[in-house]
Amino acid sequence: MAGMSITRAALEQLDREDPLAPFRDRFSLPDGVIYLDGNSLGALPRATPARVAAAVSREWGEGLIRSWNDAGWMDLPARVGGKIGRLIGAPPDSVMVADSTSVNLFKALAAGLALRPQRRVILSERRNFPTDLYIAEGLATLLGQGHTLRLVEAEEIAGALDDSVAVVMLTHVNYHTGAMHDMTAVTAAAHRAGAVMLWDLAHSAGAVPVDLAAADADLAVGCGYKFLNGGPGAPAFLYAAPRLHAAVRFPLTGWLGHAAPFAFEPSYRPAAGIAGAAVGTPPVLSLTALEIGVDIALEAPMAAVREKSLRQTTIFAELVAQECAGHGLNLVTPTDPTRRGSQISLAHTEAWPIMRALIARGVIGDFRAPDILRFGITPLYVTHTELWDAVQTLREVLATKAYTAPEYQAKLKVT
Amino acid sequence: MAGMSITRAALEQLDREDPLAPFRDRFSLPDGVIYLDGNSLGALPRATPARVAAAVSREWGEGLIRSWNDAGWMDLPARVGGKIGRLIGAPPDSVMVADSTSVNLFKALAAGLALRPQRRVILSERRNFPTDLYIAEGLATLLGQGHTLRLVEAEEIAGALDDSVAVVMLTHVNYHTGAMHDMTAVTAAAHRAGAVMLWDLAHSAGAVPVDLAAADADLAVGCGYKFLNGGPGAPAFLYAAPRLHAAVRFPLTGWLGHAAPFAFEPSYRPAAGIAGAAVGTPPVLSLTALEIGVDIALEAPMAAVREKSLRQTTIFAELVAQECAGHGLNLVTPTDPTRRGSQISLAHTEAWPIMRALIARGVIGDFRAPDILRFGITPLYVTHTELWDAVQTLREVLATKAYTAPEYQAKLKVT
Repeated sequence: MAGMSITRAALEQLDREDPLAPFRDRFSLPDGVIYLDGNSLGALPRATPARVAAAVSREWGEGLIRSWNDAGWMDLPARVGGKIGRLIGAPPDSVMVADSTSVNLFKALAAGLALRPQRRVILSERRNFPTDLYIAEGLATLLGQGHTLRLVEAEEIAGALDDSVAVVMLTHVNYHTGAMHDMTAVTAAAHRAGAVMLWDLAHSAGAVPVDLAAADADLAVGCGYKFLNGGPGAPAFLYAAPRLHAAVRFPLTGWLGHAAPFAFEPSYRPAAGIAGAAVGTPPVLSLTALEIGVDIALEAPMAAVREKSLRQTTIFAELVAQECAGHGLNLVTPTDPTRRGSQISLAHTEAWPIMRALIARGVIGDFRAPDILRFGITPLYVTHTELWDAVQTLREVLATKAYTAPEYQAKLKVT
Repeated sequence: MAGMSITRAALEQLDREDPLAPFRDRFSLPDGVIYLDGNSLGALPRATPARVAAAVSREWGEGLIRSWNDAGWMDLPARVGGKIGRLIGAPPDSVMVADSTSVNLFKALAAGLALRPQRRVILSERRNFPTDLYIAEGLATLLGQGHTLRLVEAEEIAGALDDSVAVVMLTHVNYHTGAMHDMTAVTAAAHRAGAVMLWDLAHSAGAVPVDLAAADADLAVGCGYKFLNGGPGAPAFLYAAPRLHAAVRFPLTGWLGHAAPFAFEPSYRPAAGIAGAAVGTPPVLSLTALEIGVDIALEAPMAAVREKSLRQTTIFAELVAQECAGHGLNLVTPTDPTRRGSQISLAHTEAWPIMRALIARGVIGDFRAPDILRFGITPLYVTHTELWDAVQTLREVLATKAYTAPEYQAKLKVT
């Protein structure tokens, strides 16, 4: 659309031609809302309430303890893990659903460091999601072996690799900017330096093409409640490349990661392969909801999802330029489509009250400190027309300075 | 009832006089089942399906990301933690719901060891629940500082204390035998030896009186899906005594344990007090279900629960003696009421097929390797008459040798 104005009519036409349009009906979205925050909490699949209700009333209420076998609860973490694996290029039996992303980062990072016992550096990106850096910091303190966290800018990763680096730990798509690393190139560079490569797929799984096997990644973790639409606090997942299964050891040695959990052996003996990444009893109700979201993602061809995502993020950025020029917004997300995930981030000095004003008008994105307006594009349920309407609302909020109203100016509480 | 036969009529009378009888109606129990496995997975409260449905459809579906504030999701772990605290004698703001019991054991044990940096021994009981021992083993390996796990019999704990013991880690009520430690006496002995006392309350919370503050316990963890009726894989909890809050540090330093999670600061700065025990995003749907179970437990006076529990475990053991003599059952649970939790464990060489035959007849207990028939007593929903009927079924299975049928003899799969 370069050089031409984008019109609402043109976007309506794109919606009519959209091969993914039928997926919107698979989700329950409230009236009067344009939801551009699926990168923080994905929307509710229409099938989820009945499925969760059956898990509660029939499996738990009627089946009681028998449901661990009869309803397949014992297999849920591996089964849903296997399904997620198909979305991220992971071979069978290499992904396990367990715990939170933060806890899985701890497990994966500790496992990665143990694979490089002579090295002491964890290399990451300064603007990685804080929990990744906090977990690394906490692990280094716990180990007390002089591990340090080397933080550089995204483009400095390759240059910062040397033979002191044990693990390169990066988030594939940056939560703040939406910038996406070249997974294959960065993994290859890490391997050339002899480092273990650990990817955080929180903003990737279900959103962008990921092929862990093709990229030869070593370890990965990811999140169930963003683009996988698994529900608030859905459990997370952990991947280890099959070639590492014989050597890798996870430090949270709970009974469900034991080779024979119900033998009640006195000593820990890890289950073979990724099964050793399990720790405690999984949150069945939350896991049940996650499976529904993952099943929908598996139905949508990733090539079509990516095509629509790039089209929509491009349109959104162009619309902002077209409709909101002169209002102090700066595009933070890379314009190069190969370098961005499925979100558009805009910087503005008044980002916090602007986002509050948008949300009050039914356009839900989110704010990330200190100055980012973040708009997630979830191709399965966001229409092209909604992008038009969202940007019109943004324009109006900026042009009328509606965001200066006292109700939006209350200081952000971050403590 | 010493010296007299117990009759079904007498038990019917006890049911009529039972002040806790109305609580049974608060639970949804399937027809044709006598449920004596609430110590493994508690029953479904009647209020839970509607509450979980509201969390799914209204809070997630309609509220979407706004529900973190508007529906109080952010406060759930501390709020439910505070409620659990009231059940276990924990002061306000000293209990947090988070993760699984296994993960919380890791966090608490690591925190405990860090409080005694000159000591290298974790003292525990040989028959502690395996995940407790596995987690300790894994942590010791991870730390690589020569920590060892000293395992003794339950009655040898006091004698095994010396100035090398950093942490005494015990499960208050043993999963296998149902034996209960004297929390106050053991904690005092640990403190006299200069050790930190960590209690696992998996089989205690909601089942027996616990007063962590009165016992001067240092750290504790516990489970949401047993006597708290929180649902399969309900999140667990962690306690730290307020006097330790300034010094204690948990090693899983995820963003939700940060003093300002949404400030996205570059370095970890733990939240004050027990809030630093939070790690990643909590499983909201599972946590919502847990709150219902905890609320019911708070309505039931613990003195009445304990009185009924002791009466019922006594009756169950006496009925087994009266009705099943000569069939090779051996009572494993202590007869001293001050020394047992809310279960009766019976040893039998054919425990596995016997339990399968019982379950096929609607009497649900469970089997614990190698030879234990385990019957959990949950006073909120188990009647005295059910104990009679369960023991009659047990007698019949034993007397007719029904358990020798091929369908019950299939070898236990433990791998």
